[in-house]
Amino acid sequence: MFYHDKKLQYRVRVDKPNPMFARMLQQAIGGIEGEIRVCLQYLFQAWGSRGPVKYRDMLLDTGTEEIAHIEMLATAVALNLEGAPASLKDEMAKDKMIGAVMGGMDPRHILSSGMAAMAVDSNGVPFNGSWVVGSGNIAADMYANVMAESTGRVLATRLWEATDDPGMKDMLSFLIARDTMHQNQWLAVIEELGGLKNVHPIPNSFPQDMENQEFNYKFFSTNIEADADVQGRFTSGPSMDGKGEFSAVRITPQGQEPQLGPPDPRGHAQKEQIEFYGGDSLIDKVKGAL
Amino acid sequence: MFYHDKKLQYRVRVDKPNPMFARMLQQAIGGIEGEIRVCLQYLFQAWGSRGPVKYRDMLLDTGTEEIAHIEMLATAVALNLEGAPASLKDEMAKDKMIGAVMGGMDPRHILSSGMAAMAVDSNGVPFNGSWVVGSGNIAADMYANVMAESTGRVLATRLWEATDDPGMKDMLSFLIARDTMHQNQWLAVIEELGGLKNVHPIPNSFPQDMENQEFNYKFFSTNIEADADVQGRFTSGPSMDGKGEFSAVRITPQGQEPQLGPPDPRGHAQKEQIEFYGGDSLIDKVKGAL
Amino acid sequence: MFYHDKKLQYRVRVDKPNPMFARMLQQAIGGIEGEIRVCLQYLFQAWGSRGPVKYRDMLLDTGTEEIAHIEMLATAVALNLEGAPASLKDEMAKDKMIGAVMGGMDPRHILSSGMAAMAVDSNGVPFNGSWVVGSGNIAADMYANVMAESTGRVLATRLWEATDDPGMKDMLSFLIARDTMHQNQWLAVIEELGGLKNVHPIPNSFPQDMENQEFNYKFFSTNIEADADVQGRFTSGPSMDGKGEFSAVRITPQGQEPQLGPPDPRGHAQKEQIEFYGGDSLIDKVKGAL
Amino acid sequence: MFYHDKKLQYRVRVDKPNPMFARMLQQAIGGIEGEIRVCLQYLFQAWGSRGPVKYRDMLLDTGTEEIAHIEMLATAVALNLEGAPASLKDEMAKDKMIGAVMGGMDPRHILSSGMAAMAVDSNGVPFNGSWVVGSGNIAADMYANVMAESTGRVLATRLWEATDDPGMKDMLSFLIARDTMHQNQWLAVIEELGGLKNVHPIPNSFPQDMENQEFNYKFFSTNIEADADVQGRFTSGPSMDGKGEFSAVRITPQGQEPQLGPPDPRGHAQKEQIEFYGGDSLIDKVKGAL
Amino acid sequence: MFYHDKKLQYRVRVDKPNPMFARMLQQAIGGIEGEIRVCLQYLFQAWGSRGPVKYRDMLLDTGTEEIAHIEMLATAVALNLEGAPASLKDEMAKDKMIGAVMGGMDPRHILSSGMAAMAVDSNGVPFNGSWVVGSGNIAADMYANVMAESTGRVLATRLWEATDDPGMKDMLSFLIARDTMHQNQWLAVIEELGGLKNVHPIPNSFPQDMENQEFNYKFFSTNIEADADVQGRFTSGPSMDGKGEFSAVRITPQGQEPQLGPPDPRGHAQKEQIEFYGGDSLIDKVKGAL
Amino acid sequence: MFYHDKKLQYRVRVDKPNPMFARMLQQAIGGIEGEIRVCLQYLFQAWGSRGPVKYRDMLLDTGTEEIAHIEMLATAVALNLEGAPASLKDEMAKDKMIGAVMGGMDPRHILSSGMAAMAVDSNGVPFNGSWVVGSGNIAADMYANVMAESTGRVLATRLWEATDDPGMKDMLSFLIARDTMHQNQWLAVIEELGGLKNVHPIPNSFPQDMENQEFNYKFFSTNIEADADVQGRFTSGPSMDGKGEFSAVRITPQGQEPQLGPPDPRGHAQKEQIEFYGGDSLIDKVKGAL
Repeated sequence: MFYHDKKLQYRVRVDKPNPMFARMLQQAIGGIEGEIRVCLQYLFQAWGSRGPVKYRDMLLDTGTEEIAHIEMLATAVALNLEGAPASLKDEMAKDKMIGAVMGGMDPRHILSSGMAAMAVDSNGVPFNGSWVVGSGNIAADMYANVMAESTGRVLATRLWEATDDPGMKDMLSFLIARDTMHQNQWLAVIEELGGLKNVHPIPNSFPQDMENQEFNYKFFSTNIEADADVQGRFTSGPSMDGKGEFSAVRITPQGQEPQLGPPDPRGHAQKEQIEFYGGDSLIDKVKGAL
Repeated sequence: MFYHDKKLQYRVRVDKPNPMFARMLQQAIGGIEGEIRVCLQYLFQAWGSRGPVKYRDMLLDTGTEEIAHIEMLATAVALNLEGAPASLKDEMAKDKMIGAVMGGMDPRHILSSGMAAMAVDSNGVPFNGSWVVGSGNIAADMYANVMAESTGRVLATRLWEATDDPGMKDMLSFLIARDTMHQNQWLAVIEELGGLKNVHPIPNSFPQDMENQEFNYKFFSTNIEADADVQGRFTSGPSMDGKGEFSAVRITPQGQEPQLGPPDPRGHAQKEQIEFYGGDSLIDKVKGAL
Repeated sequence: MFYHDKKLQYRVRVDKPNPMFARMLQQAIGGIEGEIRVCLQYLFQAWGSRGPVKYRDMLLDTGTEEIAHIEMLATAVALNLEGAPASLKDEMAKDKMIGAVMGGMDPRHILSSGMAAMAVDSNGVPFNGSWVVGSGNIAADMYANVMAESTGRVLATRLWEATDDPGMKDMLSFLIARDTMHQNQWLAVIEELGGLKNVHPIPNSFPQDMENQEFNYKFFSTNIEADADVQGRFTSGPSMDGKGEFSAVRITPQGQEPQLGPPDPRGHAQKEQIEFYGGDSLIDKVKGAL
Repeated sequence: MFYHDKKLQYRVRVDKPNPMFARMLQQAIGGIEGEIRVCLQYLFQAWGSRGPVKYRDMLLDTGTEEIAHIEMLATAVALNLEGAPASLKDEMAKDKMIGAVMGGMDPRHILSSGMAAMAVDSNGVPFNGSWVVGSGNIAADMYANVMAESTGRVLATRLWEATDDPGMKDMLSFLIARDTMHQNQWLAVIEELGGLKNVHPIPNSFPQDMENQEFNYKFFSTNIEADADVQGRFTSGPSMDGKGEFSAVRITPQGQEPQLGPPDPRGHAQKEQIEFYGGDSLIDKVKGAL
Repeated sequence: MFYHDKKLQYRVRVDKPNPMFARMLQQAIGGIEGEIRVCLQYLFQAWGSRGPVKYRDMLLDTGTEEIAHIEMLATAVALNLEGAPASLKDEMAKDKMIGAVMGGMDPRHILSSGMAAMAVDSNGVPFNGSWVVGSGNIAADMYANVMAESTGRVLATRLWEATDDPGMKDMLSFLIARDTMHQNQWLAVIEELGGLKNVHPIPNSFPQDMENQEFNYKFFSTNIEADADVQGRFTSGPSMDGKGEFSAVRITPQGQEPQLGPPDPRGHAQKEQIEFYGGDSLIDKVKGAL
Repeated sequence: MFYHDKKLQYRVRVDKPNPMFARMLQQAIGGIEGEIRVCLQYLFQAWGSRGPVKYRDMLLDTGTEEIAHIEMLATAVALNLEGAPASLKDEMAKDKMIGAVMGGMDPRHILSSGMAAMAVDSNGVPFNGSWVVGSGNIAADMYANVMAESTGRVLATRLWEATDDPGMKDMLSFLIARDTMHQNQWLAVIEELGGLKNVHPIPNSFPQDMENQEFNYKFFSTNIEADADVQGRFTSGPSMDGKGEFSAVRITPQGQEPQLGPPDPRGHAQKEQIEFYGGDSLIDKVKGAL
């Protein structure tokens, strides 16, 4: 169950309100790299957690922390919007365009939310629940979390660069720090689970001898140029999971040309498609069945 | 630029067509864990690649391979649908319901595609371009790729369990093997880039002394119960990136209660909201400005 | 800021696990009538709240409670899925169809989440952030909340009818009770704000004499039949906001046929469209400008 | 069945075309607060109406009127776009940026629609059918309609503020007036149905003694601070539906820690998750079953 | 402006209600091939029509007719749902599954709409405004309309095959007839505009000598197999627009390997990406700029 | 199966980088008129192709070519973004707004992709798999393809007008030429299939005598004005498919007022809705069944 107090997890101060920056912050709220995503992702992973209980507890701890991050960012959006043009009409009077001020901000911050944050990204595209990944496999989930915190920290550093407002930089330096912790935290679980050699290939509970043994450690080059070969850690030497040896080959088809059967006449392809298979009688059959 | 031949990368054989399994395979085509996602993800990462050229080349190699995986799965869907009920009317005649056969398959495989694969998941939800992650930071992208191949291999093993068709199991054992390779491949890049200690925190080009130094390696417990402390690799000892020391604390607010300013009268909050700030004159000002 | 404990707000017990009911419960999690929507809606309204502080506080209280409702439902989904067929292959062996069991459940509960709840509705359509309404006008928001709790309680009673599992009925009777409270709660705010006569028309801060005075209390019949007139509380008598008198009329156009100007030649309509306005020279102008 | 004439419901005149305002008007066409939503919402409610026939008739009347509102706004968008820059190249020649004019407008008004309205909101996000609410419960639907007309009128007044074009202000003053009527109209139905005391809790056909009787009129504070209690009409006194007495309490968990069962081995969680439940034999069983 | 009467355009009769068929009919309401799409598409094309007025008038005529088609189908859905299981609990009592009946229908027809149509497709995926195509080019729009009526008629014939209910077959035979008319109608406009030779390439107002003259009538084979050449009407002979001569060639790259510049250091790629371009000083510059 | 080389299909050169143009190009990548759509559309049509094999082969050829078009455009986006403001902070220092430069570009090109293309349109709306049309009927599919290439060429000419960068104009003149070819190519298939008279009405395999014979070639005017009749090729003379004679009539309802049955009491409509049908006993029945 959940509780709150009225304070923010960390101070949010906006020295020079900036509606365009409010729009950019929306990416960290409702974007795929944003805080609604990690919040729901960690909570849903916790609620569906099967296996060692401590991971459930940890996910609840961090999922709950993330609600407070959405709160901080939503507050920052509202404060930045207080710098929106005092009078839209004045602005427009100068010129038939509503102007750069308007052009750069999200018009829905005026029209839909009345100067407050929304559950959308920096282009106004709504948050999408498909981004909430919880696979039931803890190792896959930890990588989903490392990925979320990595793109999240990249986003936060870009927002940090995009502002010279000291209050906003301070808030972002806190969020960047938390992303550092969370990257480390999910990686620590992977180490606890035995590290690369035990964890991979994910899922490690699938009997690996049931996978194709010829192609499971081969790098395929699909390049048709003569001198195309890429070389790297992934083309020779032991595989990262310690269970195979990397090699590299030019790709060649192992399968045949696919052959589909005739269309069911009741699906009403064009008759030329049906007749291609000697389908006259098929069409007659349909008529006969009426 | 891209080329093709008419053969499949690996053989696709369906011994006992099964429209319900066709629906399940759609998850591996148009779902968030599916092949359209990884195909476009690797290609977009290649096309926007800045830095060592070999990663661009490698991404092109594997992104191109993934087109062939979509092709294999789309072929498998079409072949499984050839087992759809020969006569919908006959089926329905038995009962006023179209029946379990129909209930379990995607009705759009009949209605929209005429017994062929679509760019949707197993519930008919369309593929969504937001899933195509390319951040411009190669380490973040590699984790996005490990995550995609991990949830992808989990999905493929579940599909493998869900069928006893030898042809389908054979095809899936190939795709599972390729996921093994690709997990290893992206991890190999992380090793080439210096491993956890060099790569993290991502992005490693942000001067880490600019992030908050108090909270960057602290695990926050948000649990209010007396005996709630979680312990793990992530609560003590050196951090995974070697740049800090894990510790754990109960969370406490570092910020204040947020205070937003009055609504702009032109945004037409209720007058009681405006007047709360002594806003009578604000409303008068609007009237005066008309 | 937010906190949690490990207990559920109310007991969740599943006596007879039922994967199909798990799917139905998803509507109450990730559907437009569901708990993620109200949770985020109340929290975003709180975070953007301007005006009397007590409404912010109240919204935080109830928004935080709703997280616990998602948690209860997610737990109920996971428990219901423990009744999923013990062996998919066995099930399929009976018949080439995976069967009614499979057909009725969400295949992604097997394929994507490994028997856990997801942020989607009962058809697997992802939660959509556009449903999170916070307009910056507290009266409009209260109606959005009454509406959410009304469709929410309708949904919960339908779920209650759809199960005869005593544990699920008990959990739903609790959620139904909370919806009763929340309907009353948002209506209480409308009363506090002065009731219908003060609150409407929303927004009450727009000078009502600026709206068209001829059509603001007229019911328009668009029916062309001779005997079509609808009569009701909305066709005569004082309006609900006490500021007008209802009347009813047959609709007649007050405007003219619209006339758009010629297409900009650079937008490349067909030349017949441009020439309709004597546009030959326009096309020449484009050529000349090359 | 439906008919039309060629005239607009009300005059649409644009004195000073403004492409940025065209973009803002899109919110009133294809946004969640917009006219496509109310049009389809009222028509779908009519088409599914069960119960007193006059509500079906009324919904058809107003749903049909709303088509004319979309038409007016679409015309306004097209007319405002006629002020788009006469020459994009000239504009761009000044500067490597296409400029404020371009920046502020929806680029798809040039690229996709050729200077005409689209079924999208002011950020180009497409209209979404999930917004069309018809629950089958007339009271819930009336609140959905009051909510739509309330956020709709808030939007229209904001658009009115955002323009000083006399033609646009005139058109908006008409639409604002219609929103006034429609708010009153749906509220009149609630009065006809017996008002708050008869209508609530919605649905009123669910036997209220089947809901939990302990928590159905209790306000839960989730705030953990000592001095956190909110007081208002919703914390004491008779409930709005007259069926209970409001009270307020600090929230406490009524449930237990959730306990999920072990993952099905065929779902391929990591083996550490399965073994946590003594699952070795489970994995062996899978292998044995191959 | 728009009007209605209370009657349906054509009779809608359901002899044997069938909830599964209700679900299938949703594809014709809210699917991409469905009636909401064509209705809005023709109306939006009308409202943005520039050029000969008669096309605007015609689009209004047919767009208005399509509203009546949605109405017919929505009525058919509601009537088919009256055959839904009289008691869900009874159904469930037989078995822990809610059963085939339930599995095959859209659960939201029970949970969300209370036995009425919704603005979604046969999988519950909401109608999406992006499907409403109006390009501002009348020839492109006519093809969009032919396409919509072609996939629409294919859908309607498949629905006709899927039912043996005489009432439903009668209604569908009417809708199939209207699709026949509408396919012919849009093709008639293309003939009026001068037929293939005048209309193509669309847009015909773009000076065709500005397009690349080497590749505008060449069929590219991307197949790398020796014997891969496809031959058809599209590989030799005069082009369909009469403005070129078809030929076929094996594709060869005309461009070079792309070379992107270094990442902006403020975008925080990994430092290895920046340093690849000799970027040490770039990172120093960032630090220096702090 | 698929292959690649490292070169582009055609040269991509950006003389004057322009982040706003980068945003506009996104429409041609991830928009409904864009290249991801045609690429996947042709490939999915190929993979589901039933009937003459040469069409499968041709679709593979052109679908593969389209991947190279995405590649060209993605490269063009990345190169145009190299002109983004060298320093966001410098830009912002001038003014509290980030400025027109920033306002006009897609902020996610900075925040999410680090100066690279994404799978979204010019408003940042993600590519949507529902746009990938493959109906299983080759004639319907050919019209879907003509439509895609027609709106695609309209888009490309608008982009051509929007830039005066010689490199971009050169690239676009190539893509415009390919759209010319592809329009002709799909039309050539329609001719091969026998032209309008054989192909229509689509599907031509549905026995046309089963469609309603009274209304299949009648133009319906829904206009209620006295002088409203539209005349054109579509109101008289032989139909385009040669199978009927066009005529035009004023529309009149052929159906009756719809009558739905009472709501199922377990769906919990308001009791006034149920009682309208004499439903008291229905509600009692629910209570009795508890």
